[in-house]
This record gives sequence, C-alpha cells and structure tokens, in this order.
Amino acid sequence: MAKQFAVIGMGRFGTSVARTLYEMGYDVLGIDSNDDRIQDTMDLVTHAVTADTTDEHALKAIGIRNFDTVVVAIGNDTKNSIMTTLLLKELGVKFIVVKAMDEMHGKVLEKIGADRVVYPERDMGYRVAHNLISPNILDYIELAPDYSIMEITAPTKFVGRSLEQIDIRRKYGCNVMAIKHGKDINISPIASDILHEGDVLVIVGKNEDLDDIDENR
Amino acid sequence: MAKQFAVIGMGRFGTSVARTLYEMGYDVLGIDSNDDRIQDTMDLVTHAVTADTTDEHALKAIGIRNFDTVVVAIGNDTKNSIMTTLLLKELGVKFIVVKAMDEMHGKVLEKIGADRVVYPERDMGYRVAHNLISPNILDYIELAPDYSIMEITAPTKFVGRSLEQIDIRRKYGCNVMAIKHGKDINISPIASDILHEGDVLVIVGKNEDLDDIDENR
Ligand SMILES: Nc1ncnc2c1ncn2[C@@H]1O[C@H](COP(=O)(O)OP(=O)(O)OP(=O)(O)O)[C@@H](O)[C@H]1O
Ligand SMILES: Nc1ncnc2c1ncn2[C@@H]1O[C@H](COP(=O)(O)OP(=O)(O)OP(=O)(O)O)[C@@H](O)[C@H]1O
Ligand SMILES: [Ca+2]
Ligand SMILES: [Ca+2]
Ligand SMILES: [Ca+2]
Ligand SMILES: [Ca+2]
Repeated sequence: MAKQFAVIGMGRFGTSVARTLYEMGYDVLGIDSNDDRIQDTMDLVTHAVTADTTDEHALKAIGIRNFDTVVVAIGNDTKNSIMTTLLLKELGVKFIVVKAMDEMHGKVLEKIGADRVVYPERDMGYRVAHNLISPNILDYIELAPDYSIMEITAPTKFVGRSLEQIDIRRKYGCNVMAIKHGKDINISPIASDILHEGDVLVIVGKNEDLDDIDENR
Repeated sequence: MAKQFAVIGMGRFGTSVARTLYEMGYDVLGIDSNDDRIQDTMDLVTHAVTADTTDEHALKAIGIRNFDTVVVAIGNDTKNSIMTTLLLKELGVKFIVVKAMDEMHGKVLEKIGADRVVYPERDMGYRVAHNLISPNILDYIELAPDYSIMEITAPTKFVGRSLEQIDIRRKYGCNVMAIKHGKDINISPIASDILHEGDVLVIVGKNEDLDDIDENR
C-alpha cells in the first residue's frame, strides 16, 4: 500500500505540502481547526477534516497513528504546534515533521521528539537573497563549501561562440557538464558546440571561478 | 558603490532576506511599522527604521528611490502589500520584489508593476513534499521536464563497490559526475573509484532512471 500522509494546518505551507503529495499520487488527509480552510482544501487532497489537533480524542478519532508521516504546519500559534507534536509523539506516530517559527520554537520541537523541523520562510529568504545577487544563477548544488554545480543563463559574451573558443576549462578552471537549449539538452557537450542566446549552462567548478563566469556578462 | 537594498516587513521571510543580503556584504535597510520588530532587526542589518510604508511621505523621508532593489515582505495584510508596491512603483524604485499570499494576490502585484513575485511558503511546501518522498535525494537541478542532476546519498547496495562494478551508465542509463566523500570531492570519477557509506553522488540522467537508483536501496 502506498504511504499515507496527514498534514495539520492548511496555511500556505501546509496546503502546498499536502497538495504536492496528493499530486504525486499519495493519500493525503488535510486537517485544520478552521472549517473555512477545510472547505478550501477539499478538492486538493484525498480527505479533509475539521479538527482541533490539541485535542487527544479528536486525534484518536481520526486514527492518526495509522499515518506513516504527519506534517505539522501550524505557524503562528506556537503553543498549538508544540501541543500537537507532543500528542502525535505520545500516540506513536512514527515520522513527525514540524514547521517552526524560529530557532527557539525549533529547539523545543526537537526536544519533544519532532523527527524533522523545517523553517520554510527562513530557507526561502536565504534562497531569494542569493538569487537577487546572482539572478543568472538559476540553481546550484553545493558539492563542498567552495565547490558547486551551477545552473546559469549563458553570459552574453559567450553567445555565438563555441566551447572551444570560450575555453571555460582553461580560462575559468570550470567544466561545462550540460547545455540546455530550450527543450533540448546536451549532456555530453563537445568542443565545437556553439552557445545560443538563452541557453542554460550547467557548470561545475570552484565558487570563485563560477562567480567570475557570472560577472563576465 | 555596492548595491543598496531595502526590505519592508520584518516577518520570518523578510528578516531572512535582509539578514542574508547583509551577511553577503551589502547595505540593507530594514523597515517595519511595528517597532518591536525593528528592535529585533537592529543587529541583523545596516539600518532599521520604523515606518508605515503605505504612507507616501514616510517612504520619501526614507529616500526609498535611492535603493536599487526593494523587497516587500508584508504577508497577511494584502492591502498594505499592494498599497506599498503601488507607491514604490510611483516613486520610481527600479526593481521591486514582492511576497504574495496566493495567486490572486500575485496577479494584482504583477499588474501594478512588481518586477518579481515570490511565494515562499508554496515553494518550500513543494520542496519539503518532494523531500519526504525521496529523502536520499539531497538536491536536484532540473535540466528538462524528464532530465535532472541529482545529489543523492549513495544507496546501500552501491557501498563497497566500484563504479565499474555498479555500472550505473549501462544499468540505469545515468552518469556519475562527482563523488563527495566527507570534505573530499572527486569531480572526475573513474571506473575503479569505490563508493563508501555516506558518500554523496552527483548523477545526471532521466528522472525515471534516477528514481530507480533511489529505490534500489
Ligand atoms: N490546534 C489546531 N488544530 C488544527 N489546526 C490548527 C490548530 N491551530 C492552528 N491551526 C491551523 O493552522 C493553520 C496555519 O496556521 P497559520 O496560518 O497561523 O500559520 P502560518 O505560519 O502563517 O502559515 P503560512 O505562512 O504557511 O501561511 C491555520 O489554518 C490554523 O487554522
Ligand atoms: N504598512 C506597513 N508598513 C510596514 N510594515 C508593515 C506594514 N504592514 C505590515 N507590515 C509588517 O510586515 C511584517 C510581515 O507581515 P506578516 O507577519 O503578516 O507576514 P507573514 O506572511 O506572516 O510573514 P512570515 O510568514 O514571513 O513570517 C510584519 O512585521 C508587519 O508589521
Ligand atoms: Ca503568518
Ligand atoms: Ca540547489
Ligand atoms: Ca508564513
Ligand atoms: Ca535544486
């Protein structure tokens, strides 16, 4: 049987988690104490119920222990978030993911047994800030503190030139691993491949060298 | 002169954007109508001021048009968010980034001239949901709808074996681009390289083939 998920708190984050899981084909129960929120959630998940999850009887009536993973996405009401997590733990839920407001809240959640604590606003703030500084860098995977794979829109000065002419490997010490041209993707780029406007390069190298490529627009 | 940023609304998202930009070495002005929020922000940014940004005079007094980029991170009060964005646009701010509550809010923001609209909770919800389904996948860069670079913890069945023995290319149709072993990173893996427990692989291939690697634990 496929994994069963319950998500408590149908705010923006909780709704997005629930909806994404449901769209990936999993069974998802959405729970909120606010009936309006539940009405809005109905069509996005498998089931949606109105319940106050700080009430042990309500949680038992839902059969919450039968869910493999429960996500607690109660935000502003820290007390409700902590109370709910405590009850889920007591009722034997195996994997509990909880959204935290701040580090203090997060520490309490870990102490009482949350298996994973997430900070959606903080993490997205970090990502958006980095993207403001380097808008051409579409994404990156850190391999080490000073090494990354970067997904970058081809700098203007590269456009119309071949990889051989640009000579990224010698000039910047980086390797081009893929070139994305619209829907086409070339994952074995060769020296004669020419870059076009709007091409997206996937490059591996030292962060400082990658930054040089980004600056050289 | 380095870029100057202003961030309006010192909630969790706004604070994280402001703090990250400041830590990257940029000048950041934090603005909130709530004085307590400004007190908490003081040490995280260059300057912090208490002001209601729906008040045109307040925005002028701050000299808001001198900032290269202004981030509007007012959440729940959609009216304030829209009013503020409208004024920033009228005052000639060049690049305006605004956090939206939902798609309706986002559409209005784009209509009135927001240069970029972000949905932090929705985007993080999507990421967390995917991570719940594939916890070994640490990160990925989509190259195309069905092609990705994936950063994955080495599946147990790969541990102690060489790349030649595992034969990822033939068996899964994927290419290993890098092996991360603690702080060491090997960006030119060869056939005789052996995988150790906890190694992180960076692999490129079709999503369905990558999923097969993830399942084969
Ligand atoms: N005891 C409870 N039982 C069930 N649901 C609850 C309980 N307490 C709060 N909630 C629900 O949690 C949801 C999320 O809370 P809230 O909107 O305060 O969080 P938030 O951090 O602002 O969310 P987001 O930023 O993701 O939109 C609300 O819909 C609220 O009704
Ligand atoms: N007119 C205004 N001028 C300046 N600041 C404002 C104005 N209106 C609201 N704010 C501030 O915006 C901040 C963020 O708003 P709020 O906390 O409602 O958003 P949020 O979406 O819940 O934030 P987050 O989820 O990122 O924590 C608050 O600190 C609030 O005081
Ligand atoms: Ca909120
Ligand atoms: Ca990344
Ligand atoms: Ca929020
Ligand atoms: Ca990614």
